[in-house]
Amino acid sequence: MPTKIKSISIAGAGNVAWHLASGLKTQGFKISGIWSRTTSRAEELAMKVDAEVCAGLEGLKNNSDLILIAVSDKFIGGVASGISGFSGLVAHTAGSVNMQVLARQFQNYGVLYPLQTFSKDIPVNLKEIPFFVESNSPEGLSALKEIASGLSPTVYEADSEQRMMLHVAAVFAGNYSNLMYSIGNDLLRSCGLPVEALHPLIAETARKAIWGNPALLQTGPARRGDLPVIQKHLETLATHQEYSDIYHLLANTIIEKYK
Amino acid sequence: MPTKIKSISIAGAGNVAWHLASGLKTQGFKISGIWSRTTSRAEELAMKVDAEVCAGLEGLKNNSDLILIAVSDKFIGGVASGISGFSGLVAHTAGSVNMQVLARQFQNYGVLYPLQTFSKDIPVNLKEIPFFVESNSPEGLSALKEIASGLSPTVYEADSEQRMMLHVAAVFAGNYSNLMYSIGNDLLRSCGLPVEALHPLIAETARKAIWGNPALLQTGPARRGDLPVIQKHLETLATHQEYSDIYHLLANTIIEKYK
Repeated sequence: MPTKIKSISIAGAGNVAWHLASGLKTQGFKISGIWSRTTSRAEELAMKVDAEVCAGLEGLKNNSDLILIAVSDKFIGGVASGISGFSGLVAHTAGSVNMQVLARQFQNYGVLYPLQTFSKDIPVNLKEIPFFVESNSPEGLSALKEIASGLSPTVYEADSEQRMMLHVAAVFAGNYSNLMYSIGNDLLRSCGLPVEALHPLIAETARKAIWGNPALLQTGPARRGDLPVIQKHLETLATHQEYSDIYHLLANTIIEKYK
Repeated sequence: MPTKIKSISIAGAGNVAWHLASGLKTQGFKISGIWSRTTSRAEELAMKVDAEVCAGLEGLKNNSDLILIAVSDKFIGGVASGISGFSGLVAHTAGSVNMQVLARQFQNYGVLYPLQTFSKDIPVNLKEIPFFVESNSPEGLSALKEIASGLSPTVYEADSEQRMMLHVAAVFAGNYSNLMYSIGNDLLRSCGLPVEALHPLIAETARKAIWGNPALLQTGPARRGDLPVIQKHLETLATHQEYSDIYHLLANTIIEKYK
């Protein structure tokens, strides 16, 4: 692999590829090639970052020091096979995929994982996103660290096991907290109150959890062990059976945790 | 009841009483008396808002146009009995207690419920808190609305059934989202990564949920129906059995919701 990464090709044109390609371009990297299973998306992203569209995976090898594999987890192995023999650095961007998926085909490989919930149409400030890097070699690690540090001030090393646990943690703190918001909104709508009524609570709960330790800031009927209120809430949820199991399990978890 | 509320007594000296008393004092109300089961807390709050400490509940009736009952749900009935016969307005501040708990003892009664997670030592800006009011009479409702409107620009009417559902919604959006943050932190600590790594995700997820509809912004493996990743995550949680049931139930809820 070259000692200094200057040009990067990207497999994938989904949310992660989109935000990374734009950020890397802004950082001064040459984006050489973009490949996607969906050609129209590859074309759209290539136009945005002034790159070539690659009709086949092989094309990603041309004029690249680094190939980033930013596709769905299950396609990473297939993409790796398609660029087999590439002598530069190869890194995937997935949370729950072991780095070793790249060990068979490449000499220099690693992971560049941005921890955030990306939606294509919502602007993301990469500087606020922590990156987690891993590589099979000190040179690879140092190259990925340098790239990540250009995108964000927050860069951590994490091996594949840590990254897997991190991804699980992120499912709880991100995806599942969002489900809780979503259930809250559903319940408000069901009784004719505006969902906006919950917004200050959502903002304040998140603010506190960032300011301090959420385990020490837990409030509510389950935290107080207030079984009569919990019972009333479960009765209120009789018309929302899909949520009463969740209420019950989470209340019990809190009661057990704090007893 | 008097047509214009000028003086207020408060039963309770917990988090809600504390923040309300301070806010009402700032609004220019005379805080006449404070009673609490814990005399030292009553004294502390009375000193802060320049009020009398009442040794017994009866004392709350003196020089008050309104008595606010800001005690734990299970003590509201007892406090109401203790101030029985009061001819002014009486309101409790609880989410999950029907207004009718006050119907037997009083002519003029209602509810003034602030929806927020209060911790005594964390400053709260009441202006950012929505209030929900209810009363048995138009005069009571108008008085409580006026008081709430002085504290916050966001005041809603909600009957006891709506308020109960609102409280359940708040448990999900507040208490349970906090549990999700707390679990995320636990998992990060267990693999030696800093909890700060989750902060941008927590902030961004809350920001998006306030900006848009969280049901439309759900992301993650369950939302994508990505069963292999879900399976890997459950295996990763083998050492955290208390969380794997939660992961499983919430993943299934999301899969069902979006299929």
